[in-house]
Amino acid sequence: MTQILNFFAETANYTLCSFERAPRICNYSFRCTVMQMCLDVTELKSACVCFQEEPGPGPGGGLCFADGRRRVDYVLVYHCKRRQSQHRHSVVSNGNVPSQSPTPSRRSTKGDILEAVLEAGLAMEPANELQDKIREEFERGLQEEGLEIEHDKEVCVDVCILTVRFTRLHVPWSILSREAELLKIRVPTKKTYQLKEKTGLMGVISSFWMKINQPFQPGVPEPQDPRIRVLSQPFSRDKMCKTCEWHSVSIVGSCSVQSLFSKSVFSHVLVFSGCLPSQIHKGSVSCLSVFKRKYFGEKIGLYFAWLGVYTQLLIPASALGVAVFLYGCFTVDTNVPSQEMCDERLNFTMCPLCDRVCDYWQLSSICSTARTSYLFDNHATVGFAIFMSLWAAVFLEHWKRRQRCLQHSWDLTGMEDDEVRKNELRPAYEDFLLKKQEKKAKNKKKEELASESLSWTDRLPGYCINISSILLMVGVTFSAVSGVILYRIIVFAVMSMNPDHEAKANVRVTVTTTAVIINLLVVLVLDEIYGAIAAWITELEIPKTESTFEEHVILKAFLLKSMNAFAPVFYVAFFKGRFAGRPGDYVYVFKDFRMEECSPGGCLIEVCIQLGIIMLGKQLIQNNVFEIAIPKLKKMYRTYKEEKDGSADDEDKDSKREPQRWDLDYDLEPYEGLSPEYMEMVIQYGFVTLFVASFPLAPVFALLNNVIEIRLDAAKFVTEIRRPDAVSAKEIGIWYNILSGISKFAVITNAFVISFTSEFIPRMVYQYLYSETGTMHGYTNHTLAYFNTSNFKPGTAPHDTDFDRQLRICRYKDYRDPPWSLESYQLSKQYWSVLAARLAFVIFFQNLAMFLSMLVAWLIPDVPRSLKEQLKREKALLMDLLLTEEADKQLISNVTLPYEWDKMKWNNTPPFQHLASDHHSQCQATHAINNSSLTFRW
Amino acid sequence: MTQILNFFAETANYTLCSFERAPRICNYSFRCTVMQMCLDVTELKSACVCFQEEPGPGPGGGLCFADGRRRVDYVLVYHCKRRQSQHRHSVVSNGNVPSQSPTPSRRSTKGDILEAVLEAGLAMEPANELQDKIREEFERGLQEEGLEIEHDKEVCVDVCILTVRFTRLHVPWSILSREAELLKIRVPTKKTYQLKEKTGLMGVISSFWMKINQPFQPGVPEPQDPRIRVLSQPFSRDKMCKTCEWHSVSIVGSCSVQSLFSKSVFSHVLVFSGCLPSQIHKGSVSCLSVFKRKYFGEKIGLYFAWLGVYTQLLIPASALGVAVFLYGCFTVDTNVPSQEMCDERLNFTMCPLCDRVCDYWQLSSICSTARTSYLFDNHATVGFAIFMSLWAAVFLEHWKRRQRCLQHSWDLTGMEDDEVRKNELRPAYEDFLLKKQEKKAKNKKKEELASESLSWTDRLPGYCINISSILLMVGVTFSAVSGVILYRIIVFAVMSMNPDHEAKANVRVTVTTTAVIINLLVVLVLDEIYGAIAAWITELEIPKTESTFEEHVILKAFLLKSMNAFAPVFYVAFFKGRFAGRPGDYVYVFKDFRMEECSPGGCLIEVCIQLGIIMLGKQLIQNNVFEIAIPKLKKMYRTYKEEKDGSADDEDKDSKREPQRWDLDYDLEPYEGLSPEYMEMVIQYGFVTLFVASFPLAPVFALLNNVIEIRLDAAKFVTEIRRPDAVSAKEIGIWYNILSGISKFAVITNAFVISFTSEFIPRMVYQYLYSETGTMHGYTNHTLAYFNTSNFKPGTAPHDTDFDRQLRICRYKDYRDPPWSLESYQLSKQYWSVLAARLAFVIFFQNLAMFLSMLVAWLIPDVPRSLKEQLKREKALLMDLLLTEEADKQLISNVTLPYEWDKMKWNNTPPFQHLASDHHSQCQATHAINNSSLTFRW
Repeated sequence: MTQILNFFAETANYTLCSFERAPRICNYSFRCTVMQMCLDVTELKSACVCFQEEPGPGPGGGLCFADGRRRVDYVLVYHCKRRQSQHRHSVVSNGNVPSQSPTPSRRSTKGDILEAVLEAGLAMEPANELQDKIREEFERGLQEEGLEIEHDKEVCVDVCILTVRFTRLHVPWSILSREAELLKIRVPTKKTYQLKEKTGLMGVISSFWMKINQPFQPGVPEPQDPRIRVLSQPFSRDKMCKTCEWHSVSIVGSCSVQSLFSKSVFSHVLVFSGCLPSQIHKGSVSCLSVFKRKYFGEKIGLYFAWLGVYTQLLIPASALGVAVFLYGCFTVDTNVPSQEMCDERLNFTMCPLCDRVCDYWQLSSICSTARTSYLFDNHATVGFAIFMSLWAAVFLEHWKRRQRCLQHSWDLTGMEDDEVRKNELRPAYEDFLLKKQEKKAKNKKKEELASESLSWTDRLPGYCINISSILLMVGVTFSAVSGVILYRIIVFAVMSMNPDHEAKANVRVTVTTTAVIINLLVVLVLDEIYGAIAAWITELEIPKTESTFEEHVILKAFLLKSMNAFAPVFYVAFFKGRFAGRPGDYVYVFKDFRMEECSPGGCLIEVCIQLGIIMLGKQLIQNNVFEIAIPKLKKMYRTYKEEKDGSADDEDKDSKREPQRWDLDYDLEPYEGLSPEYMEMVIQYGFVTLFVASFPLAPVFALLNNVIEIRLDAAKFVTEIRRPDAVSAKEIGIWYNILSGISKFAVITNAFVISFTSEFIPRMVYQYLYSETGTMHGYTNHTLAYFNTSNFKPGTAPHDTDFDRQLRICRYKDYRDPPWSLESYQLSKQYWSVLAARLAFVIFFQNLAMFLSMLVAWLIPDVPRSLKEQLKREKALLMDLLLTEEADKQLISNVTLPYEWDKMKWNNTPPFQHLASDHHSQCQATHAINNSSLTFRW
Repeated sequence: MTQILNFFAETANYTLCSFERAPRICNYSFRCTVMQMCLDVTELKSACVCFQEEPGPGPGGGLCFADGRRRVDYVLVYHCKRRQSQHRHSVVSNGNVPSQSPTPSRRSTKGDILEAVLEAGLAMEPANELQDKIREEFERGLQEEGLEIEHDKEVCVDVCILTVRFTRLHVPWSILSREAELLKIRVPTKKTYQLKEKTGLMGVISSFWMKINQPFQPGVPEPQDPRIRVLSQPFSRDKMCKTCEWHSVSIVGSCSVQSLFSKSVFSHVLVFSGCLPSQIHKGSVSCLSVFKRKYFGEKIGLYFAWLGVYTQLLIPASALGVAVFLYGCFTVDTNVPSQEMCDERLNFTMCPLCDRVCDYWQLSSICSTARTSYLFDNHATVGFAIFMSLWAAVFLEHWKRRQRCLQHSWDLTGMEDDEVRKNELRPAYEDFLLKKQEKKAKNKKKEELASESLSWTDRLPGYCINISSILLMVGVTFSAVSGVILYRIIVFAVMSMNPDHEAKANVRVTVTTTAVIINLLVVLVLDEIYGAIAAWITELEIPKTESTFEEHVILKAFLLKSMNAFAPVFYVAFFKGRFAGRPGDYVYVFKDFRMEECSPGGCLIEVCIQLGIIMLGKQLIQNNVFEIAIPKLKKMYRTYKEEKDGSADDEDKDSKREPQRWDLDYDLEPYEGLSPEYMEMVIQYGFVTLFVASFPLAPVFALLNNVIEIRLDAAKFVTEIRRPDAVSAKEIGIWYNILSGISKFAVITNAFVISFTSEFIPRMVYQYLYSETGTMHGYTNHTLAYFNTSNFKPGTAPHDTDFDRQLRICRYKDYRDPPWSLESYQLSKQYWSVLAARLAFVIFFQNLAMFLSMLVAWLIPDVPRSLKEQLKREKALLMDLLLTEEADKQLISNVTLPYEWDKMKWNNTPPFQHLASDHHSQCQATHAINNSSLTFRW
């Protein structure tokens, strides 16, 4: 049992010590985020179907309390572990708000509970006794806040080893409406207006775009005419019933108590409104998009929206990438340099690739590599790299616009940030503070006790561990990369000694492929480790709030994971072969092994292979193995274990109830946040943008992956995991900054890839500076330096050769002065001029791309014109509404008083009070409406 | 008279045709921006002093209507020009809100007035008749809106050639409070709380900083304890009197009708609350800062705050700039390259600087230039350039924080943007639209009439003129620069022919100085022209709203003016001397004149001179001549002319009243917006950042200028110009983007200045790549190429020389192969390696500076921590307030009804209704309070 408890403790990520402060936190920060939900008839219907099947609290049902009237909004879960038998009956709170008004109680109880808890903590009661006490205290606090509670009608047997207990919560209408008003949640009014239809060219374009998008937006049944918008206004209880302006708003609560409870004596909270996941997964997944936001809340809705925008914009990038690749395919036969490399008549005898055992070789033997290399390294690539910088800028801007539109259509514009949730102190932080204060009190130092925050010195050890861990991890990454390099060098040297000619020919391919696969495995393993380490070291930093914690974890995880993923590619692109030396003066590792060089076809093709395999491998393996297979295995293991436990305790069988709705939900995997999903996509975005100059096909692979990913994620969210707490969010937060950072960095990497990794600049310089004919003819000869074989260091010349034994001159790829010049083997003037050209190109490319990106960002307004017009119109309509009200008021104040009084009385009993004024009757109301005409809009 | 009318028409920037639509605009967009003012006892006192002097509407007084009760909030000015005599008596509207409620009238009148105006327009009445009609219509509209109007008690004589008429407006309390509620203006509540004092190191630093700042914040008498903040909440009439939570809010209106009236039949609007400018300027200017925001409104307040932040941050930059300069002064004697240049023993004979007439010369003769050059071109400059990039980032971030703080302390956070003012259509736009519709109606095309916006084709001519004008202006700027270059080349050539040796020695200095002064004059003249042209071509673009217009004008003016100011400097820094050719192969202009070279000491010293003279000259001349002398002259001219007019019409004398308060105000210069002030500062910011690598003293000069500028501006705003309409603004708008753009561009220019203009890189390359000893010895020799005098083209060798006639070799500054090498006079390997190093440095510097700037921007949070805590606290306090109210409400609803009714009645008659509920009695109230104790806080 301890195992399982620990398992939950791990997944919920809380520490045992933090239990003590839960009630206090509760009193500080109990502000419900009330979600406006179920406005849709479709949705309501499905919710009601669930309900109608089993109306009572019987098996599989249980949407309401035992009275069948109040709806279950939350379910709290805890584990019971008792030694003495204790009978407990169902306690249904009577549904009335406690007699004292909430505010005074809020004030008075805070101190009391704290004292009680501290007392209990100091008295060192057995852990479970203490927990019971705290839980009761906590539940009392909830009841004082106005929530209603129902316990299970369970009888606890003497030794119940593993009983999961459920406490159900109902948030009554009065609480919901108060919180909605305080949070200024916008609700629709009766007023609607029609959006203008796009006409002319814009209309054609937009309808064409809609059609193209269809496949990427799986089955979105439009709930109503998309051109009709409903005017919304912040919720106000006063206005609610006055002029019947509101639709009967059914605000269903999903209080943000989750974060609170997960730290407390309850091991989990199940969010519980509308259909339950266990019900939905029997239906089709395709209706998901309707639910995306309304079912999961804005935060998850934004993730899916972001993923959709990203995937949509990958389409043009993919198309152009394929076009660039095809351009390479079609022009490869007209390309002079690769023709020259394949031309056997030119007869370039190259210097050997390794000492002693390797022979001289003919350049024409690597003809095929040269041709393949050209597919990725042609003029079009440069244009494509610039296009991708712009694409990144457009993507970021477009997302800003989309986000702005979503904010408006989800009525988030006027809403204040969920400050409370943001500023909520973490239990670990509070714990540390408490301990510190206790210590001070013990030491009886004269410093004041109420130091309200951690000082710099308290955090110092945490920071030290953080910095050293990150440095260590960076070291690990680099050693992994170096290890693979050494593997390549050594295996290459060893395999080259193989006398078999056939084997020798395949040495490079074999070594490269195995090395990349090793790299991939290292990347995958370290990825998982780094994720865990980032969370762990951030914990040590004792961040103050949950949002700081999340941000720090994301930043660290991103730093480590991206480094891990990109380091091998960076090495191949910018460092491989640059420190190999020259014939007669090679650089050696371990005195015996020559530093590796790029393949004679250039480094670009190796970057291509490296990138392709890591990107594809990472996506396929992480998507399939980690996201699908492992959860399935986990579930299978759990089921197996439960069955085993069940068969062991056969006498428990009769005490087992039939599975309730919450039992089914509880069996699902817990929701672990969006970070892994975002991280995966952001790393992919890095692959797509950072090295796109060397691998124009990256966007295509990303696109294919994402089309599948959206569906897998959707299915996972609906059927595999527990329903996440609906969290409202206006933006995707730090991820936007990370994306923008990647885009900026991508400009630099692409500039360097084009100028240093590809052959673009040397070719240009040759054509315009050195070529006598102004064409590329003679380029290959120009790039090869001369080496006098008599200058080989003793013992490094080829042992045995098929070539002329008296061969005086071999060639190697470098810009160096020939042996017969004054400064033999020194870097030549060509080298410096090419270097200058490369650097000038970097400056030119970087500034051009940055300027264009800024231009794009400036030209695309953050708020779409149509939205601007809509806002203006809504404002005018609202102003009209207010002025009408104003006039009405004046009219009223001019009339005699009794009339007004009468009106006010009527206000307090609106015509649909039975629906809206209290939530209690909602369960019945649902019945009624379901049976009546659907044209009555909820 | 037409002259003066035109003068006003010009300054107010409206066209006659736009008169027709004024009433319609009024009905659309009459939303007052109500300013919360006069909360300060100090301020009130001074306002009351003004009042007490002359309580009636007598000469010099006139703060109230004739009844002495209602305060004058606005004064409308128009010019009367009549043929027939017409008697008009003072018409004081009875002060009651018109019997019909405002909203219906608003709706009904809109169409009527439009029709009336159109009719009038079509009937082609004489212009002044029509204007009278429109004015009356307009005034009636105002009265229907609830404003109260008082006319002058004037009798118009038969032919009154120039009578300025005043119509006074009073905005009653009911209107003000309604608008305040609609605009959600925040007003202080009774609740106050204390800010935490900074302790420890931070406290010492902040108090130190305060002391340093004192001189830059002229005489700010803190109105109250700065550590006590008053909680504020959006204004609401309901809450206003309920629980006595509010201070008696004296919201004094300053409706934003200005923009409206300035387009209409009234030639000007005088804003008219509190003290009048004509009164203030008798007092001290030092009390200005108290008024800055409350008197002028947020927009002007923000300008002064921004100027303050900028000036403050110039202090550290100046200090470091001076330090860098001093470092140069102290190390000049240990600098090897300048020592070598001064060393006569090295005996470098240089090739002549011009053909035929110039002689060879000794390098040691320019010793002093070399030493001066070093003062600005040493290692410290590079560090300073990086520092200044960071400085720019810090400045922008710091300003963002300051702006955020100001928004909070000025209670602007919750306020909605002044959308109405932003979206108000420009009259020129409306006019165009109307004409277009008329045209369509005439052509009877079947297209729909109500095309609500201008199509692309309508704007095409405007855009074409815009683009071509801008291109033309760019051309003018470049021709001006080229003209000065030609002047230099030709004058240099001509003066070099002077046989006098003395004169010859000073040729370069004379030419450079005169050229720079010509440059400066051209810059100053073009600056004025470009400002006018930018406004003119934007007018042709027919922008839709006033804010678009302003933004476009600013962008164009900035583009033209900055180009104008910086183009000469750019030329000297990056182009001068780079196309001069080499001995034996010079480049010629007009076949006879050699392209100019930089002085032998390097281009950097020339950049320095150019920059210094343009920056200082621009500041001194624009500040003194344009901002002070010209307005004074204008005023003198006007006074002179009026006197002349006055003496001519002696018979008018008796009809002239004694000057009223508004007459005095009307005599002041009109307010012309903040754009010129901002523009001046932004161009200065460009000088400070763009070329700081070549002129580290720029920040010092800017600092000195600004310390004076703040005072001059303040004095001008208070005493020289009419009181501007108080406009609320949350940000400095487009100026921030321009500043941020300059900062980014500055990184690039500084990178290029250091690597290409200064000698930093060649020195580094020599020391680490070519020097045999690892020191700088031999550097001068290394930078000088050899030239064989026999290679001079015929007729270009020196005619007459003091040197050995048989001189074979002369030296010139370039990296070229010597005459005896294979590729004689070709660019040498050194050239390419230095070029590569220069380019690499640009990449390194640019990316380092950008990265550091981004890091700075990321590390400095946009919202200061103290403000965050304050906001959190305020939120908690407000929440408490709301919950208390909530509890009270519940309590009330539980009690019997009569009690509540009683309470409500009491609510409508708050204890200080006589002060706040209506504005009428304010004039008396002011008396009362002034006599009573000042501890009663308004």
